[in-house]
Formats: sequence, C-alpha cells, structure tokens
Amino acid sequence: MNAKSVPVSTAALPSSRKVYESGILYPHIKVPMRAIQLHPSANEPDVWVYDSSGPYTDPRANIQIERGLTRIREPWILARQDVERQETQQQAINQSPLRAKSNAGVTQLAYARAGIITPEMEFVAIRENVGRAKLKAANGRDGNSWGANVPEYVTPEFVRAEIAAGRAIIPANINHPESEPMIIGRNFLVKINANIGNSAVSSSMAEEVDKMVWAIRWGADTVMDLSTGKNIHNIREWILRNSPVPIGTVPIYQALEKVDGVAEALTWEIFRDTLIEQAEQGVDYFTIHAGVRLAYIPLTANRVTGIVSRGGSIMAKWCLAHHRESFLYEHFEEICEICRAYDVSFSLGDGLRPGSIADANDAAQFAELRTLGELTRIAWRHDCQVMIEGPGHVPMHKIKENMDEQLKHCAEAPFYTLGPLTTDIAPGYDHITSAIGAAMIGWFGTAMLCYVTPKEHLGLPNRDDVKTGVITYKIAAHAADLAKGHPGARDRDDAISRARFDFRWEDQFNLSLDPDTACAFHDETMPREAHKLAHFCSMCGPKFCSMRISHEVQAAARESGMSEMALKFREQGEIYIRSELG
Amino acid sequence: MNAKSVPVSTAALPSSRKVYESGILYPHIKVPMRAIQLHPSANEPDVWVYDSSGPYTDPRANIQIERGLTRIREPWILARQDVERQETQQQAINQSPLRAKSNAGVTQLAYARAGIITPEMEFVAIRENVGRAKLKAANGRDGNSWGANVPEYVTPEFVRAEIAAGRAIIPANINHPESEPMIIGRNFLVKINANIGNSAVSSSMAEEVDKMVWAIRWGADTVMDLSTGKNIHNIREWILRNSPVPIGTVPIYQALEKVDGVAEALTWEIFRDTLIEQAEQGVDYFTIHAGVRLAYIPLTANRVTGIVSRGGSIMAKWCLAHHRESFLYEHFEEICEICRAYDVSFSLGDGLRPGSIADANDAAQFAELRTLGELTRIAWRHDCQVMIEGPGHVPMHKIKENMDEQLKHCAEAPFYTLGPLTTDIAPGYDHITSAIGAAMIGWFGTAMLCYVTPKEHLGLPNRDDVKTGVITYKIAAHAADLAKGHPGARDRDDAISRARFDFRWEDQFNLSLDPDTACAFHDETMPREAHKLAHFCSMCGPKFCSMRISHEVQAAARESGMSEMALKFREQGEIYIRSELG
Repeated sequence: MNAKSVPVSTAALPSSRKVYESGILYPHIKVPMRAIQLHPSANEPDVWVYDSSGPYTDPRANIQIERGLTRIREPWILARQDVERQETQQQAINQSPLRAKSNAGVTQLAYARAGIITPEMEFVAIRENVGRAKLKAANGRDGNSWGANVPEYVTPEFVRAEIAAGRAIIPANINHPESEPMIIGRNFLVKINANIGNSAVSSSMAEEVDKMVWAIRWGADTVMDLSTGKNIHNIREWILRNSPVPIGTVPIYQALEKVDGVAEALTWEIFRDTLIEQAEQGVDYFTIHAGVRLAYIPLTANRVTGIVSRGGSIMAKWCLAHHRESFLYEHFEEICEICRAYDVSFSLGDGLRPGSIADANDAAQFAELRTLGELTRIAWRHDCQVMIEGPGHVPMHKIKENMDEQLKHCAEAPFYTLGPLTTDIAPGYDHITSAIGAAMIGWFGTAMLCYVTPKEHLGLPNRDDVKTGVITYKIAAHAADLAKGHPGARDRDDAISRARFDFRWEDQFNLSLDPDTACAFHDETMPREAHKLAHFCSMCGPKFCSMRISHEVQAAARESGMSEMALKFREQGEIYIRSELG
Repeated sequence: MNAKSVPVSTAALPSSRKVYESGILYPHIKVPMRAIQLHPSANEPDVWVYDSSGPYTDPRANIQIERGLTRIREPWILARQDVERQETQQQAINQSPLRAKSNAGVTQLAYARAGIITPEMEFVAIRENVGRAKLKAANGRDGNSWGANVPEYVTPEFVRAEIAAGRAIIPANINHPESEPMIIGRNFLVKINANIGNSAVSSSMAEEVDKMVWAIRWGADTVMDLSTGKNIHNIREWILRNSPVPIGTVPIYQALEKVDGVAEALTWEIFRDTLIEQAEQGVDYFTIHAGVRLAYIPLTANRVTGIVSRGGSIMAKWCLAHHRESFLYEHFEEICEICRAYDVSFSLGDGLRPGSIADANDAAQFAELRTLGELTRIAWRHDCQVMIEGPGHVPMHKIKENMDEQLKHCAEAPFYTLGPLTTDIAPGYDHITSAIGAAMIGWFGTAMLCYVTPKEHLGLPNRDDVKTGVITYKIAAHAADLAKGHPGARDRDDAISRARFDFRWEDQFNLSLDPDTACAFHDETMPREAHKLAHFCSMCGPKFCSMRISHEVQAAARESGMSEMALKFREQGEIYIRSELG
C-alpha cells in the first residue's frame, strides 16, 4: 500500500481546539479532550467534551500514515520491566513484538489486583471526568442508574478497584502503544464501537484506514476490524499503527482464510497461531466464540434465522462436522495464557445471538450466556480482562431480561451489545431500529454499544454509513448516560439548549454531535450568513417564533416579579387550586 | 393553484396490490389494505399490512387533484339525517358545508354513547385486524402492554365501547368525507402523524399537497397542516380535498395571521370565526392550547428554553399583555359546541411542553397537564372526542412518568406525543433522538406519535425529510406494537426474517418499510440482478456467510434428529449441567 494515497481527515472540528490535561500520579501523561469555544455573547466558558479522535484533530500533530502514530504508551509499558522483545515469524512487522517475561501477568487486571495504579488507569480516570470537576456544582444528580455505582468523581483508585473486580476493562495490548487508554464498564460513560473491514467482495486497505480515522473523528471509542479478504494481516497492521483507539478483531475469520474457508478444516493449532500473530501485532481485544458448544447447536434447529453470527456459524459447522466439542471451549485456558502474555482482552462472543425478533431470548441464546459466565471466571483466574457480547435482535419488552441475565450469570463483567434491533422490518434503517434498543440497554447497564449502520443486512458500510452509524450510536450512548445520571452528562445538552434559546446558531452547530450536517441543514432554507444571527428560523418565520416570544415573556416576567410569583404558587400549591374552572 | 402542476406519487409499492375488505354490519364499506406478494419459492400467502396511503397506491383509482378524492363517507354521514347544509361566508369552498341540525350530537362519541355502531367504527375495526384473523393461531401473545387492554380481535362493539369510554377517538369531521376512518387509542395499533405546512419563509401549495401524499405513501396515519404563511386557507382546502387521512391544524396560527402576527391583538371572536372556518372546511382535529393559563406562565420564567410551543407562546404573550386569563380557557365550552357541531376532535395542546432536557417534567408542564385533564372532562360532557398532546424533550428515565401522569390526570384519553427527544445534542438527527423516546412512550401507552424530522430545530422539512421522518416513526410505532404484544404485529417481522434466512432478497426488500432504499443499498455493493438470488451478500462474501452455514447446520440437525435432542436437553435441563468445564 502506498500510504501517501490515504487521504485521512485531519482538520479540527469547528470552533474546537484540542486540550490536554496532565496526570498527578503520572505528570507526563496527557489526556486529550476537545474544548468547544462559544460566541462571546454567551459569556460562558468553553464546553469540554470527551474526545476519542486522537491526534488527527490536533493541527499541531504531524500525521504520517506510513510511519504510524506516536507510541505514547511505550515508555509506560517498558518502565514496568515485565516485558521483553520477541523474535517473530510474521511478515511485515517493523518491530520485534513485546511479550510478557516468563510468567509475568502484564494485564491491567493483574496490576489492579496487585494494587498498582497504572498510567493507563490514571489516564482513563481523567478522561472520564471531562467537565465533571468544574460543573458538578451546577446540576444535581438526576437519573436512574438501575443499580450501577456511578461515582460523583472518578479517581484513579476507583478505576483500579473496578478493574480488579472485573467490572471494567482497559483494552490495551502491550503491542499497541499508539493507543490512548479508555475504559469499558457499567459505572463509566457508555462507549461505542464501530465495525470496519473489507470483504472478499469489496473495498481496499486505504479505504479501511480512512474509515477508521473517520469513525473516531465522529466519536467511535473502539474499532473492530472485521476484514475477511486476502489482505487481512496487512490491513490490520496499517490500522493498528495509526489507531489511537483500541482495535478488536474476530480471529476465527483470519484462521478460516488460512484453510481456504473450509470450516471443518480448522484446527486448534491454526487458530492458536492466528491468535499469537494478532496479539503480536497489537490487537486489543479478541472476539472468541467459545460459548458455542456442541450441545447447544440443536437448540437452534427450529429458529427462524438459525445462527447469524459468522463466528458462531463457523464453530457450529466445525462441531457438527467432527461431532465433537468446540476446540475454543476445550482449549480456553490456553487461549487465556496467550491473552495474558500480551494483555489482549476477551470479548466473549455471542455466537448464538438471535438474528430475528422471533428468536430473541431463546434457549440457545441463554444457554450460551451461562457458558460465557463460566468462561469469564476462568479468564479472570488467568488475570485476563473480559467483556461479554450480547444481542442482536430483541423486541423492547425483552431487552431488560438480557441485561439482568448478563449481570447475574457473568458476575458484572462489562456487557457489549450489538444494538439490539427492536424490529426486523426496516432494512436500510437498522441504525435506527437498533438505536432504540441500544439506548435502552445502555441505560440498563450495557458498557459498550456496537454500532449498526444503515447498510446492515444489505451490504458493507461505506464512509457515509460509518459516520451515520457512529453519530447514531453517540446519540444512544449519550441518552443512556443522561438517563443513568452521569454527573456532568447534561452539561452539553444544557449548553446547546441555551444557545438555541439565545439564537446563537453557530454555537448550536458547534456543540452538536455533527456540526457540518446541522449547519448544512440550516443553510438549506436560510443560507445567508446574516441568518445565522437571525432571531428566528425558517420553521416559523419571524412573526411566529416561540423562542422570541418566550424572551418577551421572560422579560415581562422579570419586570413584574413573576419568578417570585412562581415560587409562591409552588409553595402554596396554588396553581392546582386555581386550575378549577370558574 | 394549477392543480395539474401537482406531481403526486401514484404508483403501487413494489410487489403490492391494494385489497379491500367489506363490512358485515355495513357491507358497502371497503377497507383498504396492502397485500405484499412473495416469491413462489417461499410457498407462503401474501402478507397483508396496514395501509394509510389511500387511493394513490391503487392503480385503478382515477386521481385528479383538482377534483379531489371520492367522498366515500358522504352517504354514511347523510344517512344519519342529523346534518344540514349551511350558508357560509368563506371563499373558495365549492360546496355548502354540513353542520349538525339544531342541537344534534354528530360526533362519534355521541353515537358511541347512544349505543350506535357507525360505519366509521366498523371500518376501523376491520382495519385494525389486518392479518389478525388468519394468523392469530400462529404466534402466541408475547409482550408487556403496561396495563393496556389489547384484544385478541377487534370487534366493532369493542371500538364503540372504547370511544364511549373516551379511551379512543376517530377524527372524522363531517366536512371531510374523503377520509378513510382510523382510530387513535391505547388499545389499538400505535399511529403516527406527519407535520407539513409552509411558512412565511418557504414552500408552495403544490409542494405541500405533494408532501401530504408522500407522507401517507410511507405510512403517516394523520397529517397536520401547520402552514403559517399567506395562503393558509387555500393550502388547507387542497390538502383536505385530497387527503384520505385525518387532517389536524393549530387554528391559532391562522387567527394570528388575521391580526398581522400581533398576539395581543387576538380576540375570542377572531379565534371563534377561525374555528368555524376550519370546521366547515373539514379539519378533523384542532390543537387548542387552552391549558396555558395565566397562572402557569411564571413557572416558565426560569426555564432554560422557556416556552417552545408556538401556540403556547402566543397565548402566553396574550395573557401577559392583557394580564388576564386565556380566552381559550374562558371560552372552552363554546369551543366544545363548535367542535360538537362538526365532529372536530380536540388535540389539547401542551403549550408548556419542555423544549430541552433541562426543562423536562417540570412544574409548568405538569400544571398544564392537570388542566388538560380538567378540560377533557368538559369536552366529554359536550360529546367531543379528545386526545392530549405530550412532550417534547425528555430523558429516558423521565418518560414513563409522563405516561403515568397523563393516564392519571386525563382519564385515559389518548396521548399524542412529539417524540420525545431523549437528548438535545444532535440537531440534524432529531428523528433519531426522538425515535428512541417515541418507541418507549408508545410502548408505555401513547396512542399516536408525532414525527420529528432530521430538520427539527434547523429548518422546514423537504420531501426527503418527510419520508425519513415517517419511516423512522413507523419503526418506533411498530417497535411499540411488538413490545405491547399486539396480536399479529410480529407476522411481518417473521416473514421478512424467513425471507432473509432463505436469501429471498426481493421479498426482503418488498416486506420492508422502504423497499426502494433497501434495494438501492443492496445494489450499491452487489448491483447485478443475479445477485438478488445469491446465497450470500457483500457483507461477508460467499465463504463466510453465517446464514448459508446455518442452513447446513439445520440440514445436519435434521439428519441426525437434533430437534429431538434439543427437546430432550431442554426437558432435562441437561444443557446447563453439561456446561461445566471438564
């Protein structure tokens, strides 16, 4: 690949600048955030927001795709003196990969259990607190966390304790030092994942790197590379070297390529070598479908849509062909040893997730979930970080049960769901059918939401689809944060609402999840620059503007001391007494 | 207006034909539905779906915009012998409008209370049962209706009883005989409304008629004409004469035009004349903001976004300017008399709905809601049909309270909400922020969902925005129907899922809410016709297709009697015993 041909987006977002907050335990760490500057008439401080876009949105950064990003975590990793360089037989790796020395546990979970607060932990603590310190006085807590323990303020020790308890993970392979640490757990902000990846049918390496940068520009917290074509290894290399967010994969896809797509030809040895290859490259989390056991496959026989997980169906076919237990299940402890040596987190795959409303919450799905709980405990014994994948297609009234069962059987390991889609009838709009389910399950406690794009069920997402998917899932995740009552989550809503009420159109655009689209939509009907200062919009025109009238109402209220009247009404409950019709 | 210049869409939807089911009590009524024909290989009957698109999708219909639709309800109305032709001073009405004779109650509520099952009631009963009769045996009931009483089968008597109890309405002005009756109530299918209308800034009559036809093509159950410009009367005339769905308006907008936009110049007399003008034209429901009482206005003084309802802010300004009680509130009984004489349903407006997350569920909003409950009872005394408008902007954890309070204070009158939007930070995507809230509140019991388009807060929706808004809200309404457990609601999901599993691509498109978009998205990556029969898609390519592998799994399962094994596993609970790691 000619890296120079990769035209990634590097501009800052409108009216935004990159700011970095330093650590206290580790003063050299620099945690990136985005400060959105408002119009001087607002007389308000900058609004700081969570920023997963990496150096690409920092105009001071020197982006060279062919060289990769700065390896910010390398000194942190080497300082721990528990890793060593390896020889490797893999091609195209321009470094000797790191591996844990002898029997050292180099996972964040191992450190957390040992009482060590790593730089990664302080990094995510600062990151999670975005805006919280300066604003916690402004809004009281308001929400229903469904039993989650969302703290007023995230301390590094809180992060350590959550990781030690298995309730949160920091996916951070020691061979992916370019990554900015982030945390996934029920007691932290809800995160989103974007899937990219080519297939045998379409798309190129350059496109995939561009999609990764594009996805994080709009807010993806992690990216999964689901490539299935010929160039899996190289695409992944380019993505990893240029990704500031954790990268996940489904290693069985590459293993299957190695046996020319014949599932029954897979062997444990081929799979194991694939895991090591990817761990050495720096993959931060692996989807492993070790819960698809031979005994559960018959439970899918009468389903409307059978097994819809690619990995799940590959393993089911293998099990049936050999009529024996899954090699992923039988070799799970060896997989743990590999993950432990590089700190690859588990994303225990739900290979039997429902692919239709008809199949939601069925025996196959919940049988597998219990096995995932069992595997979680095994992984924890090996100091491995774990999250659990969830469905899929689920009608609204069955969503809560998914969360409850997951919490019950998987001991509060973070849940990571695909949607769920709340109906099957809208191909072309499945970002929306699934955003409904995603927002709800995020509120109930899911830690990370895997996006669904408009192309789901129809084709591979292109660049526009990736953006639509990411923005849609930022909405779902933020709606969940609001409903859970994350301190400070409402600050951005309040800032944009004040801007709306004050007719600060530019501030409204700049504070939104997608300033470009908001501005473009506004300009369709009111294109002139002067209209961005107009105290009305095209919806109602100048005469009918409720916001403008509201200002007059508030002015009148101030003159006549109506605020005091309101207080009086409320105190006396008089508004209800007076509401009887005379 | 040159009606010939209105290029409305008249083709049938793909692979669909219009079918009509006749009544039993009233054999002459013909209830339209859409039958979707599947590929012969499916060996399945046509899938019938609810169809609000009117004659426009019937190739046999003779559509002439300048003449208007067939007046199907006229004989039903005249047969009741309780109406008479009126003289009118309005221009551009090409008929003498009907009005109730002397003191006759000509509302569906009056008939229902008198024990009369009208043709309108039988019509909606048949309509609600779409697919229910032939399929109720297939799927058991599955859902949580939150206390709604959703029947197995809707009888005309059930409809009558629900209307008599005030729990449902059929908006059906005697001067809108072109309309096909539909019902709005918690125990029926969730409906959606699409807002159209020009403004002082943009759009023409032809555009608005086209938008109406376009909106119902994709599934809008009612349409509100929110025009605010110069041509309000004429635009409404064209829309009414060509609309097979009920039309709602906010009469205060036109009244304000009559006083040149000066809210304080409004008078009861001007408003009353406007109501009569619109009632004579055939408007089916009026939004009346009679709950915005003088005493509540101070409660909005400290809000982040004040009063965001246009009607609410107009009335607030009037009340403050005169420092007296709202003339809508004081003359409410006279308004009821007008509505009663034409059967215009009330949509009691939530003029104090929250316009931001910060203002949700506040004292102003709930004070008004209680007054709306009080007004509901007054309207019922006058035999008027009533629904209640609801918010707005509400975070997820405060949505249920809205439904609970509405049920409590408004005696189960149907709830009709705008969204609600679950966050403020995504202008350009508010169809999605609100679809989340709409699906949830629809599940909880809201009877009709007012759509929100991507342009909300930014500009007037164009044709594409109208379609996006309608499809998005069909998703929300259907997700709610599924979760409530409407019998038969899942049949379309199951049919599309079977098509998906069988690689019947054309069936998958044709069964979807938007066949054109689904097909176009598929063709982006697999354009050739032959690919529509392909047993794979561009997402995974031929080697990795989980659906294809699943077929192999199911074939193997059949061979080895795995279904029986599954049954055995389940009976013995053995899958859980065996899931201990050996």
